Amino acid sequence: MDVLILTTGGTIDKVHDLVRETLVFDREAGSCVPAILTQARADFPFVEQLMTHDSLDMIDADRQVLVDAILAASERHIVITHGTGTMGLTARYIADRVKDCTVVLTGSMRPYSLGRSDGGFNLGGAIIAAQTCAPGVYGVMNGRVISADDLEKNRTTGRFA
Amino acid sequence: MDVLILTTGGTIDKVHDLVRETLVFDREAGSCVPAILTQARADFPFVEQLMTHDSLDMIDADRQVLVDAILAASERHIVITHGTGTMGLTARYIADRVKDCTVVLTGSMRPYSLGRSDGGFNLGGAIIAAQTCAPGVYGVMNGRVISADDLEKNRTTGRFA
Amino acid sequence: MDVLILTTGGTIDKVHDLVRETLVFDREAGSCVPAILTQARADFPFVEQLMTHDSLDMIDADRQVLVDAILAASERHIVITHGTGTMGLTARYIADRVKDCTVVLTGSMRPYSLGRSDGGFNLGGAIIAAQTCAPGVYGVMNGRVISADDLEKNRTTGRFA
Amino acid sequence: MDVLILTTGGTIDKVHDLVRETLVFDREAGSCVPAILTQARADFPFVEQLMTHDSLDMIDADRQVLVDAILAASERHIVITHGTGTMGLTARYIADRVKDCTVVLTGSMRPYSLGRSDGGFNLGGAIIAAQTCAPGVYGVMNGRVISADDLEKNRTTGRFA
Repeated sequence: MDVLILTTGGTIDKVHDLVRETLVFDREAGSCVPAILTQARADFPFVEQLMTHDSLDMIDADRQVLVDAILAASERHIVITHGTGTMGLTARYIADRVKDCTVVLTGSMRPYSLGRSDGGFNLGGAIIAAQTCAPGVYGVMNGRVISADDLEKNRTTGRFA
Repeated sequence: MDVLILTTGGTIDKVHDLVRETLVFDREAGSCVPAILTQARADFPFVEQLMTHDSLDMIDADRQVLVDAILAASERHIVITHGTGTMGLTARYIADRVKDCTVVLTGSMRPYSLGRSDGGFNLGGAIIAAQTCAPGVYGVMNGRVISADDLEKNRTTGRFA
Repeated sequence: MDVLILTTGGTIDKVHDLVRETLVFDREAGSCVPAILTQARADFPFVEQLMTHDSLDMIDADRQVLVDAILAASERHIVITHGTGTMGLTARYIADRVKDCTVVLTGSMRPYSLGRSDGGFNLGGAIIAAQTCAPGVYGVMNGRVISADDLEKNRTTGRFA
Repeated sequence: MDVLILTTGGTIDKVHDLVRETLVFDREAGSCVPAILTQARADFPFVEQLMTHDSLDMIDADRQVLVDAILAASERHIVITHGTGTMGLTARYIADRVKDCTVVLTGSMRPYSLGRSDGGFNLGGAIIAAQTCAPGVYGVMNGRVISADDLEKNRTTGRFA
């Protein structure tokens, strides 16, 4: 079963910048997703890095890029890595426009590059959900599959419902 | 949806012993599964540590302990962490005896305690599969759901089919 | 040989804050120095956490707190963990006021809590320098002992001379 | 001040082998010392990987290889990474044959590749000791400089005196 993985940035892909002493995207190194797959000996060769955005910077034009990529793809099982802040908005934007695919958004609260991240666990779950869930748009966070309608981060706990 | 997680040992739970300079089970510290769940902010309170065995040491009496635990449980969604060497044998033993549950075996090739482990990714996938797959017995490794009948490690590549 | 370790904050002690998505001090958890010492099986029981400051926020009143702590201590071998931005200023402030001790400042460019940090290497070197160097004030960074007069970070390379 | 670093194997350089499920030397990847130096932004370009031995397998012919390398080197400040089991024997063999250099042996109880290792801390200390101690042969472990005569691991505690 072919799974297409699209990356958009988000916390999962941030790295520590020594000079600015803050978390940034390393656009040269690219997404951490291929490294997570290698570590898991998971063979999903179709990874496209579409953008590197904080999810708070995502606008509908970016969401349309995602929709276009999904509609253009031959795979019917899609995983999207995304920041947690607006994951629900993007899920619902896609759900209104894509009907015949299983699309699963995921991400992490702690960047993968910092170690002890939730990113590997979440990606592992999202890849399975993309293969086992009925067509629709979902988030996978904290070990749960959440429908697009209900996908919202609790900003106090840092967890999804 | 309640998920019961049973741990049996296996590579995922091994730690480095400084004095013997080898990998062992730290029976006092127990399984790494609760730590993975905490790191993933995943709220699955039902974790039972049934045994700490190398999977090569698993015998049918141990497998019966697993079956008995599943049959006694109220949850219908079960994850079992297990060594990779005989994961398929255990899956098929359970499949012959448990009919109305979704049971998902998982584990890792690199101990979680050593860092850069596939354990978190695999457990994240197994927990999702336990909630999304039809009743039956499966393995989740390397981002794939594999039926009990086909669950076998390729000893050369260290990967499942 | 007794060594006193004083912590003041700095990058070495920062942690990732999940909610604010930035690096902060976890004042409740305290400094990472005891954890580094435990990991190294190094028995230096005298660790005092004096403050948790970004080094850019250090003012002379903070530096005087350090001087007072050194002058009040019975140990003549002192290690101070400190942010890299103003490590040289603090070293020279101390050098003007403390004469009969070996005082070694150190820190890191990457927080210890993020993994793959230079903090353990630098602290290991500073603790040795505090025991082997003549009385005076030094920095230990990047595997080098640097006198207080020459202690300055190159902001472009993130390294000390 | 030029420092020559010689690697001989030992626990610090072991890696987890997925197939054999044990700790081995990865002779192709080589020693972890260059990676530790990179992580510490420490610029010591002279690293020679002389052998990859468990220290329990070291014989006097191996020790003579070390002595010959030291006598042939232009640097007068030498660090040797070595297994902990026979570090004292090697130190005393060198001390009998090398007189005008500062030679510092170090290693770790936990392989660097497993994370949370004492290797970076110990190497950071050894590199400083090689530059600050008088000519002679020493071990640096657990934050202490120990003369060759007294260098012996306590097998129960896993620590050096």
